[in-house]
Amino acid sequence: MNLKLTTISLALLLATSAVAAVDEPIQPIKPVQNINLGQVELGKKLYFDPRLSKSGFISCNSCHNLSMGGTDNLKTSIGHNWQQGPINAPTVLNSSLNVAQFWDGRAADLKAQAGGPIANPGEMAFTHTLAINVLTSIPEYVMEFKQVFGTDKITIDEVTQAIAEFEKTLVTPNAPFDQWLLGNKEALSANQLAGYKLFKESGCVACHNGEAIGGNSFQKMGIMEPYQAKSPAEGLSAVTGKDTDRFKFKVPTLRNVEMTYPYFHDGEAETLTEAVDVMGRLQLGKKFTEAENMQIVAFLKSLTGDQPAFQMPILPPSTDNTPAPKPFE
Amino acid sequence: MNLKLTTISLALLLATSAVAAVDEPIQPIKPVQNINLGQVELGKKLYFDPRLSKSGFISCNSCHNLSMGGTDNLKTSIGHNWQQGPINAPTVLNSSLNVAQFWDGRAADLKAQAGGPIANPGEMAFTHTLAINVLTSIPEYVMEFKQVFGTDKITIDEVTQAIAEFEKTLVTPNAPFDQWLLGNKEALSANQLAGYKLFKESGCVACHNGEAIGGNSFQKMGIMEPYQAKSPAEGLSAVTGKDTDRFKFKVPTLRNVEMTYPYFHDGEAETLTEAVDVMGRLQLGKKFTEAENMQIVAFLKSLTGDQPAFQMPILPPSTDNTPAPKPFE
Repeated sequence: MNLKLTTISLALLLATSAVAAVDEPIQPIKPVQNINLGQVELGKKLYFDPRLSKSGFISCNSCHNLSMGGTDNLKTSIGHNWQQGPINAPTVLNSSLNVAQFWDGRAADLKAQAGGPIANPGEMAFTHTLAINVLTSIPEYVMEFKQVFGTDKITIDEVTQAIAEFEKTLVTPNAPFDQWLLGNKEALSANQLAGYKLFKESGCVACHNGEAIGGNSFQKMGIMEPYQAKSPAEGLSAVTGKDTDRFKFKVPTLRNVEMTYPYFHDGEAETLTEAVDVMGRLQLGKKFTEAENMQIVAFLKSLTGDQPAFQMPILPPSTDNTPAPKPFE
Repeated sequence: MNLKLTTISLALLLATSAVAAVDEPIQPIKPVQNINLGQVELGKKLYFDPRLSKSGFISCNSCHNLSMGGTDNLKTSIGHNWQQGPINAPTVLNSSLNVAQFWDGRAADLKAQAGGPIANPGEMAFTHTLAINVLTSIPEYVMEFKQVFGTDKITIDEVTQAIAEFEKTLVTPNAPFDQWLLGNKEALSANQLAGYKLFKESGCVACHNGEAIGGNSFQKMGIMEPYQAKSPAEGLSAVTGKDTDRFKFKVPTLRNVEMTYPYFHDGEAETLTEAVDVMGRLQLGKKFTEAENMQIVAFLKSLTGDQPAFQMPILPPSTDNTPAPKPFE
């Protein structure tokens, strides 16, 4: 009888929270579903394998570090031969929820994205062909690709598919704000709640909404006031060729934003306080008071969810036939 | 009754193996003991934290990558601003068993070693003071140091102590060769066993012995024939100032040697086949036949033990007060 009542109460609670969440412009992160575990485990190895770079030193995890919010926490990234990247590395966390990948959306999805940095001369500086040659020289990889994809021949298509499948697991549910959305009214402090109210009423949610609180549209950086960017990047126009798309960038997700500093496509905002201030002025024509800014920042810190939790992968060793990396050429 | 007999048989088996192991010049890796778990967990974070470098990009794990046998698998390492290191990065695996740290033994133990790369201008290019400033600006670290060391003030002493304690956990027991030493006569193939016989009878064990199969003495590189090194490193003489110590290097451990390529202090031997050939000629005045070389290599591959297994640490985020990294200065 007690058990029955509890079950009913739980059902009611869940129904209520579902309604509550529907009313909000932000939805809780859903745990990951429909995953191919074999691809995930293979993709995890590839994600951590610096042998996909010319130097043998840079892996996906170098710039999208899963110990650090899926970013490198640098203004712009360090590439092959210590080249300075042109743009801030966006987080890989929850990136499966993005409408497209890269700040300018030039990759339709994670699979299309994954091949980019490998062959970018300023990043991993390799070629797809050379990366495949490395993998093909390692029997454990050959066997794992065969097991997972049923193929005797490794191609970049399977490499990027496996990396993308691993990246799909990198969602971060269970943030305090999600707990609040799901009905735990104790999950947020008074300041965080006030910050969320400000975030909604000031218009931040116009762009930062949905499950990822961003990531689902391209918007001009500098609507009410132009943004004086230090980076030459012009965003979406590089993809569409349209002048009206200049300085339109993918709205970044605000999930785990406490961990993904510095902010903006040029990484010029070092703190959340600064980012909230600039966004308020440039995008909304609004100068937040110090107290308002503090409350919004408190809300933003409630968006840190469960971070990826998995064992460090152990990479299969190279063999006598594996081409040696060339870090200093 | 059956159970009793089994217990007795097991006891007999263990007793026999213990005797067997004592007779061999190599001992099985012992699982780690007497560990301070709080220090280990803190040290693990520090080991993976690139904020201990000037660039915010290089961590201990960059060159002693625990996914890759505790090395970077490069001839010589990549340091700050892509500087080329002077020497091959030795594995951190089982390094607690070394008589001293670095190829030239200039650090007495892991704690003394850990501070070196942080402040080396060619490696992490930071200073101890700046590293402490970063850690002190992060409340989660301050709290964890207080919890673990009972101190209100973080110093480099606690930082290196914690890293060293984590590194002590990086032993790799349970290699096939250890299983064989412990009495499982099926653990090695006929070639591996023949290789071990050659390894002992040819004199390799004179230097590569003990639990780590090396790491416990300094020996001249090039006894029967001089070694034509590409590296200017002169080994132990840099520490002792003695001319007789020129070209004496710490004998590297052969544990996990299949994963720790390339070989020698200058990383010039790309394969085990090459390394065995050079060692035979230069140290023993012996030219192994192709079949002998193959058998010794097969034995060496039986030395790969259980690799470190732990969850990727999640690093506490920087705060508004954390000094920003300076990758391009």
